[in-house]
Amino acid sequence: MPQAMAEVTLAARLQRLEDLEAIRTLIARYGPLADAGDADAVSGLWAEDGRYAVGGMHEAVGRAAIAGFITGSVHQALMAAGCAHLLGPVAITLEGDGATAVGHSVLFEQRPEGVAVARIAANRWQLRRGNSGWEVVRRDNRLLDGSEAARALFTGA
Amino acid sequence: MPQAMAEVTLAARLQRLEDLEAIRTLIARYGPLADAGDADAVSGLWAEDGRYAVGGMHEAVGRAAIAGFITGSVHQALMAAGCAHLLGPVAITLEGDGATAVGHSVLFEQRPEGVAVARIAANRWQLRRGNSGWEVVRRDNRLLDGSEAARALFTGA
Amino acid sequence: MPQAMAEVTLAARLQRLEDLEAIRTLIARYGPLADAGDADAVSGLWAEDGRYAVGGMHEAVGRAAIAGFITGSVHQALMAAGCAHLLGPVAITLEGDGATAVGHSVLFEQRPEGVAVARIAANRWQLRRGNSGWEVVRRDNRLLDGSEAARALFTGA
Repeated sequence: MPQAMAEVTLAARLQRLEDLEAIRTLIARYGPLADAGDADAVSGLWAEDGRYAVGGMHEAVGRAAIAGFITGSVHQALMAAGCAHLLGPVAITLEGDGATAVGHSVLFEQRPEGVAVARIAANRWQLRRGNSGWEVVRRDNRLLDGSEAARALFTGA
Repeated sequence: MPQAMAEVTLAARLQRLEDLEAIRTLIARYGPLADAGDADAVSGLWAEDGRYAVGGMHEAVGRAAIAGFITGSVHQALMAAGCAHLLGPVAITLEGDGATAVGHSVLFEQRPEGVAVARIAANRWQLRRGNSGWEVVRRDNRLLDGSEAARALFTGA
Repeated sequence: MPQAMAEVTLAARLQRLEDLEAIRTLIARYGPLADAGDADAVSGLWAEDGRYAVGGMHEAVGRAAIAGFITGSVHQALMAAGCAHLLGPVAITLEGDGATAVGHSVLFEQRPEGVAVARIAANRWQLRRGNSGWEVVRRDNRLLDGSEAARALFTGA
């Protein structure tokens, strides 16, 4: 193989790994930032016009609305009690400048009787490579409550 | 270092990272696919002759038997109620065309009184590089119930 | 770009990915090794002079003290009952030969009435590249109980 081609190949393989790393890190930042109450940093994970759809409850469109989830009374009450937004490892599918990632989220909450598991949910993230790195275009979150809607987010993972 | 050797070295280092990435993704797909009830995709993570040993309960040998865990009545009842098969991050040890990975699994289940933690378990995965990529040769899963058998899966992680 | 420079660049990018991989694996080993009761292997994740601060309870300094957490009566009682020290995915920030990683930990414990969630906590890991690879300089762990101290570990994740 000519020298130039070998390098292009190595660089392309490296770029793919860097993309996966960037996406995995972005998603790993969500839970800690949400539990820290850092609304700007959380919403900054999304694209300017990004969406966060919490199935059957809310859909936030744009960073200001997403930040509003964090500053809102429901999230603030959780934080005051003590909570953990644990996200599991994600399986990522890269397609050029776009990507999809799927994984679980579990919400733990301090209650008088101890720590309770308040929610178990399926998540599908759609991401794209923006000018300043990967960003979330859309996150769909659905309670794993036996409904087909949640399972559909995981199909084809 | 001569040019050719430098490239071999870079390519080998890249291959190692790609192998780790492939194995981590394979294992990250298990939970979402299990919760989606996609029996073919779940069993397709295993080699044709792969094994899945759920300590003290069952051992499935071959893809059809592994798919049977997903289509079976226990798993279907869990799915109907709502469940999450959360797998934690894995620590992977690569050895040529084989690999071992260890990590936790936690089964959450919707019950009338709320979400319960139904199982906590230790997992050891043995994998090999097949013709079409990495595949599971054997997964051992044991309840973390104080027994030595579960702890042994984690020793030397 | 001259040949030599292209290679340096590729090698540096590869090194960064290898560092992230090494740190992620190191942290992924903690939970399985702790649940296996392997005190030497757990403490060996830390630097000789490493620290493990469990907020408001203990601070262990040095490997012998950290191993003492594992061999101590509290941890041994947990292991005898059955427990899972699940750590979530971490978000890692590399800075030369140092790194910071943040993520959740959840402690599950077998109790007569079933599996309980005994602790949810925030973790901040400080690491450095030692002579024989990455090692933990300090791990801070704080209960997510509504206190600012825990949230502070996650800020700027």
